[in-house]
Amino acid sequence: MEADVKRIMLTVAYDGTNYRGWQLQPNGITIEEVLNDTLSALLKEEIKVIGASRTDTGVHSLGSIAVFDTASRMPAERLPYALNQRLPRDIRIQGATEVAPDFHPRRCDSRKTYEYRILNREFPLPTQRLYAYFTYVPLDVPRMQAAAGYLVGRHDFKSFCSADSSAQTTVRTVYDLQVSCREELIVIRITGDGFLYNMVRIIAGTLMEAGRGRIRPEEVADILNACDRAKAGPTAPACGLTLVKYEFIRETT
Amino acid sequence: MEADVKRIMLTVAYDGTNYRGWQLQPNGITIEEVLNDTLSALLKEEIKVIGASRTDTGVHSLGSIAVFDTASRMPAERLPYALNQRLPRDIRIQGATEVAPDFHPRRCDSRKTYEYRILNREFPLPTQRLYAYFTYVPLDVPRMQAAAGYLVGRHDFKSFCSADSSAQTTVRTVYDLQVSCREELIVIRITGDGFLYNMVRIIAGTLMEAGRGRIRPEEVADILNACDRAKAGPTAPACGLTLVKYEFIRETT
Repeated sequence: MEADVKRIMLTVAYDGTNYRGWQLQPNGITIEEVLNDTLSALLKEEIKVIGASRTDTGVHSLGSIAVFDTASRMPAERLPYALNQRLPRDIRIQGATEVAPDFHPRRCDSRKTYEYRILNREFPLPTQRLYAYFTYVPLDVPRMQAAAGYLVGRHDFKSFCSADSSAQTTVRTVYDLQVSCREELIVIRITGDGFLYNMVRIIAGTLMEAGRGRIRPEEVADILNACDRAKAGPTAPACGLTLVKYEFIRETT
Repeated sequence: MEADVKRIMLTVAYDGTNYRGWQLQPNGITIEEVLNDTLSALLKEEIKVIGASRTDTGVHSLGSIAVFDTASRMPAERLPYALNQRLPRDIRIQGATEVAPDFHPRRCDSRKTYEYRILNREFPLPTQRLYAYFTYVPLDVPRMQAAAGYLVGRHDFKSFCSADSSAQTTVRTVYDLQVSCREELIVIRITGDGFLYNMVRIIAGTLMEAGRGRIRPEEVADILNACDRAKAGPTAPACGLTLVKYEFIRETT
């Protein structure tokens, strides 16, 4: 007789500074590994989470999604408290809910929102060093905003994808892309149906090229059309990137 | 013949997480020690800085002041760049300027501004854990604002001073005290002519008591009048505190 197994979805926030990203790695501790170990110890069965997306070394998250199956009778709403007592302080569960047994987070239509933060002033601020990319080169925010406008919509983002991507198609939809500025902090906020490998960081690097005057905003349209990674700007460093939220629209069949 | 000695004032920002505060300590590394060592190595003479104020273990700063004498011919405006190349990433010089040879930062009238940050939501956010105090207990910001109003002005702040203070007088002037809230982050911002030992953290702890309904805002007047540390709230944890800026008004004679 099989135990009554249920599927749980966790929302997970973390400071990526001390991890080799989300996904299990042979050399280096990852978020996925810590979640598996902590869940297994708490629930006293071997747990393997399924992540909805991966983040790289040093990238942060306010709301990553992980799904797992368990025979435990612990109510889902108790899990965040029980897990947060055992997790290291740089990982914190934000919520847990029971989902359908066949729910798979990578087979659902979803919207993901990322933020890329840039500290733009003469000298670095130590308290921002882990959560924003620093540059003393003055960035023109209106130029960055104009450049960003060319990326909104459904496009082939091949130029904004690292070469080692295994994606079957490089067409993605950017629903929204805003560049805002509060004092010395520039925030690029992007929402899309999915992002290619390094896509947000290459977009950030390209918008910074526009902001410092190396390319004209309208050249972003040419970069898109070229479908050539070499035409876009550099991949901006990981520390400035945060996965802000993950929204499921409806399950794909 | 004496070398041509000049006095330099540094503005220093740091992440206090990994330091035992500002002041030299027998056991544990401090900001003052790192500055002395780095300046001495750069300028090839023994340098001892004079700090304008001290911060405790784990407290952060955007603009602490340190003064030192040097025979070096390096122009003051070059110092931030030269020092920042040698300092650890959690300390960054924000500016350097030559001052009068008899300028002493603790014998000047000054205004200091501190911020105390509180993250008030159901679960902690890892990326805020080092720079904001977390509490899941809902805080009523208008009540905190009302309570704060009683502390503005010239008062005897003995109730808001840790017992082991060596201050000669406990009378201080609070020029401004604002409680603001942006989403889940509550920021207490206070400007005064000087602060007693732990004063900002005890004020933060007391305002949080008002915010959670344990005391009425008007009771803050009674706490002030009592001149008794036991009447005020607890000392809020160090990580939420940041020295924001230091302004010199005019030199006292």
